[in-house]
Amino acid sequence: MSAQIVSAIEYFEILLPLALILLSTKFCALVGKRLGLPQVVGMLIAGILLGLIRLIPNQTVFTESTLEGLSFLAKIGVILIMFSAGLETDIRQFKSCGLPSVLITFGGVILPLGLGFIVAAAFNGGFAGMTSHQAIVNLFYGTILAATSVSVTVAALKELGRLNTKVGASIIEAAILDDIIGVILLSLFISLNGGEGASNIGIVIGKMVGFFAAAAVVGFALHFLLNLIEKKHPHTRRLPILGFAICFLFAYAAEEWFGVADITGAYVAGIIISTVREHEYIDRKVEVSSYMIFVPVFFANIGITADFSGIDAAMVGFGFAFIAVGLLGKVLGCGLTALACKYSFKDSLRVGIGMMVRAEVVLVCTQRGVENGMINPSIMPFVLILIILSALLAPLLLKLSYRHEPLEPAPALEAVTPSEETPASADGSAQN
Amino acid sequence: MSAQIVSAIEYFEILLPLALILLSTKFCALVGKRLGLPQVVGMLIAGILLGLIRLIPNQTVFTESTLEGLSFLAKIGVILIMFSAGLETDIRQFKSCGLPSVLITFGGVILPLGLGFIVAAAFNGGFAGMTSHQAIVNLFYGTILAATSVSVTVAALKELGRLNTKVGASIIEAAILDDIIGVILLSLFISLNGGEGASNIGIVIGKMVGFFAAAAVVGFALHFLLNLIEKKHPHTRRLPILGFAICFLFAYAAEEWFGVADITGAYVAGIIISTVREHEYIDRKVEVSSYMIFVPVFFANIGITADFSGIDAAMVGFGFAFIAVGLLGKVLGCGLTALACKYSFKDSLRVGIGMMVRAEVVLVCTQRGVENGMINPSIMPFVLILIILSALLAPLLLKLSYRHEPLEPAPALEAVTPSEETPASADGSAQN
Repeated sequence: MSAQIVSAIEYFEILLPLALILLSTKFCALVGKRLGLPQVVGMLIAGILLGLIRLIPNQTVFTESTLEGLSFLAKIGVILIMFSAGLETDIRQFKSCGLPSVLITFGGVILPLGLGFIVAAAFNGGFAGMTSHQAIVNLFYGTILAATSVSVTVAALKELGRLNTKVGASIIEAAILDDIIGVILLSLFISLNGGEGASNIGIVIGKMVGFFAAAAVVGFALHFLLNLIEKKHPHTRRLPILGFAICFLFAYAAEEWFGVADITGAYVAGIIISTVREHEYIDRKVEVSSYMIFVPVFFANIGITADFSGIDAAMVGFGFAFIAVGLLGKVLGCGLTALACKYSFKDSLRVGIGMMVRAEVVLVCTQRGVENGMINPSIMPFVLILIILSALLAPLLLKLSYRHEPLEPAPALEAVTPSEETPASADGSAQN
Repeated sequence: MSAQIVSAIEYFEILLPLALILLSTKFCALVGKRLGLPQVVGMLIAGILLGLIRLIPNQTVFTESTLEGLSFLAKIGVILIMFSAGLETDIRQFKSCGLPSVLITFGGVILPLGLGFIVAAAFNGGFAGMTSHQAIVNLFYGTILAATSVSVTVAALKELGRLNTKVGASIIEAAILDDIIGVILLSLFISLNGGEGASNIGIVIGKMVGFFAAAAVVGFALHFLLNLIEKKHPHTRRLPILGFAICFLFAYAAEEWFGVADITGAYVAGIIISTVREHEYIDRKVEVSSYMIFVPVFFANIGITADFSGIDAAMVGFGFAFIAVGLLGKVLGCGLTALACKYSFKDSLRVGIGMMVRAEVVLVCTQRGVENGMINPSIMPFVLILIILSALLAPLLLKLSYRHEPLEPAPALEAVTPSEETPASADGSAQN
C-alpha cells in the first residue's frame, strides 16, 4: 500500500515533460514543415532541444522516474507507429504489383543491406575472424537502411503532378514491399542476436514461419469478423477499439510465443486490418489517438535520451560512411534494377531518388537495435542526419530531374494515390 | 544501460492486459447499455471480472510490473477524464443560471455531504473525541457524494420528451455547479489531509484561492490565444494538442505550485478551453484519444485492483448506509430546495431523482481518496453499487413520475441540450 501511495504522489510529475513534449514537438514539426522536412524530423529535434534541460543541475523535469514513464509511453508509441504503418499498406496495390516493382524492391534492399554490412564490418573489427554474433550485428546495421518512408516523395511527386506515373507507382509499390522485407529482417536478426547466435537459425526461422502462418489463419478469420461487425454496426467506436486490441494481442503473441519482435506483430495486425472495409475509419481513429500523446513521446524521447558523448573520430567516420551508403545504396540499388527493367535512364534515376527517403521505420529499427544492445547508441545522431538529408535532397533532385519535361495531361490513375495522402479529412480536420 | 535493456524486454508484457481491458470493457459496456447502465458500470464490471485472473496461481497477466504500468496509464486517464468533464461544461449556460438552480445545487451538495459525514463518523469511531484529521476524512466521505453525473438523466428525459422543461434545465445547471463545488471540496480536503490537519487551513485556502486567481488570469490569455489560432488555422491538429498540453500544465502547476489536486487543474483547464470557439472540435479529439486507451484502463483498473477482502459486517453496514444517504441526500437535498423555490411537488421530486445519478466523478473522487490513504479501499464496491442503483432507479422513477402527464407540444428550448448529448457525430461516428 505504501509503495502505491508514493507512486500516486509522484505520478503527476510526468505531466510537465508530457506538456513540454507536446508543445515543442508540434512547434518544431510546424517549423520543419515550412522547410520541407517531414514531421518526424521536427519531433526529433524538439526532443534533442528538450534533452538540453538534462544538462541543468538539479532539474526536476527529466528525473529517473519521469524518464521511465516516458520510455513506457514510447514503447506503446512504437507499437502504434508500426500498427499505423501496417494499416496504411494498401494490400490491393500489393496484389497488382508488377514484376519490375518487385525487382526494384529487392535491388533497393540488397544493396543498402550489403553496403551497410560492409561499412559496419569495416569500422567494427574488420572482416577477418568475424564472429557469427558480430556478423548479425553488422547485418542489423544494413537492415536499418532497408525500409523506405515515401510520404515525402509522394508529396513531392504530387506537387510536380507526377504521382500518377510509372515512376510514382513503382516507388509506392516498392516502398510497401521493402517495409515488409525490412520488418521481417529486423525480427530475424533480433531473434538471432537474442539466442545463441547463428547456431539456432533453423529454430528462429521455423518460429517466424509459424508466426506468419498463424497470423495468416487468424487474420483471415478477423477479416471476416470485422467486416461482419462493420455491416451490422458501421462507424462505431467498437471497430477501432477492436483494432487496438488486435494490434496489442498480435504484438504480444509475436514476442511471447514466437520470439518475433512485437513491432512485427503490430505491423502484421495493421496489414490484416487494412484489408477490411472500414480500414480508413479505423486508421483515422488510431491516428488521432496515437498522435495526441504516444507518437510525439516516442520521437521526442529518442532525442531526449540521445547520447552524444560516445561520438569520437572513428564514430564520425563510420556515421558518415553509413549515411553515404544509406543514400547511395537506395539510389543505385533501385535505379540500376529499374534500368535493367527497361525504365528510361531518367525514370530509373527518379525511382532511385524517390526511394532514398527514410523516416519513421528507420528510427524504429535503430531504436530497437539500441535497446537490445545490438548497435552503438551513438549511431542515432547520424540516422537523424540521414533522415534530414534524404528528406531535403529527394524533393529537390526530383524537381530538377523533371525540369525540362513538360507536364502531360493529367492521367486518371487515381487509384495510385496511397492512403497516406488521404489524410483525416473525412472529419474536416487537417493534420498540422 | 542494462536496466534499460531489462525494461525493454519486459515492456511488451503490458500489451496482453491492455488488449484484454479494451476487449472486455467494450463488451461489458455494450451489454450494460442494453440494460440501461452507463458505460462506466460496464467498464468497472469488466475490471472486476479481469481481476479474477489474479486469483489464478502463477498467472503472468497481472504481474507487479504490468499492474504498475496500468496504474501509470490510469493516472493519465483520470487527468483526461477530468479534462473532458471540464470541456463539456457549457459555461454560457452557467452564466444564465437562475437562482433556483444555484439553491438546488447547494441543497444537493450540503445534505449528502452532511449525511455522508454523519454516517462515516458513526461507523468510524463516533463523534466524541473526533480528531481534526478524522473529521477531514469523514468530510471526504461526504464530498464523494456531492458530484452528480447527469448523462443518464439527460438521456432518460430526452427519451420522455421532457429535456427542454424547467426540470431538465434545472438538473443540467445544478449538475454543472455541483461538479465544480465537488472538485473544489475534494481538493480542499486532500490538501488539508496532506498537511498538518486543520491547523494550516488558512494556508491551504490561500493557496487554493491563489490557484483559481492565477488560473483565471492565464485562462483569459489562453482563451484569446486559442481563438486567435483557430481564426488563422481552423480545424487543425495543433488545437487539440495545445489543449492537451494546457491540461497537463494546469494539472502539474496545481499540484506542484499550489498544493491543489492535479485533477482540479485538469478540470479547470477543461472549463477554460470550453469557452473557445473550437471547443467541440477539441473535445472530440480529446475524447477519441482518451477513450481508446487511457479511460478504459482507468475504470478497469479500479475493478482489477478492487480488494474485497477487507469487507466485514461493519463495512457492509457502513457501505449500505453510505449508499442510502448518497441516494436520499440528493433526492431530499435537491427536492426540498426545489419545493422551497416554488417548484410543484412532482417537479421537485423529479429534480431530486434526476440529480441522484452518479458515475465518473464519484469514482475519480473515491479512487483519489483511496490513493491518498484517506478512505477505506473497501468502500469501492459500495460506490459501484451506488452508481448501478442510481443509474437503474433514476430513469425508472422519472418515467413513473410522468406517467399520467400528457406530453405538451415540443417547446423550442433547443439550447438546453447539453454538449454531452451532442456526441462525436460530426465525423459520422457513434460511440458504441
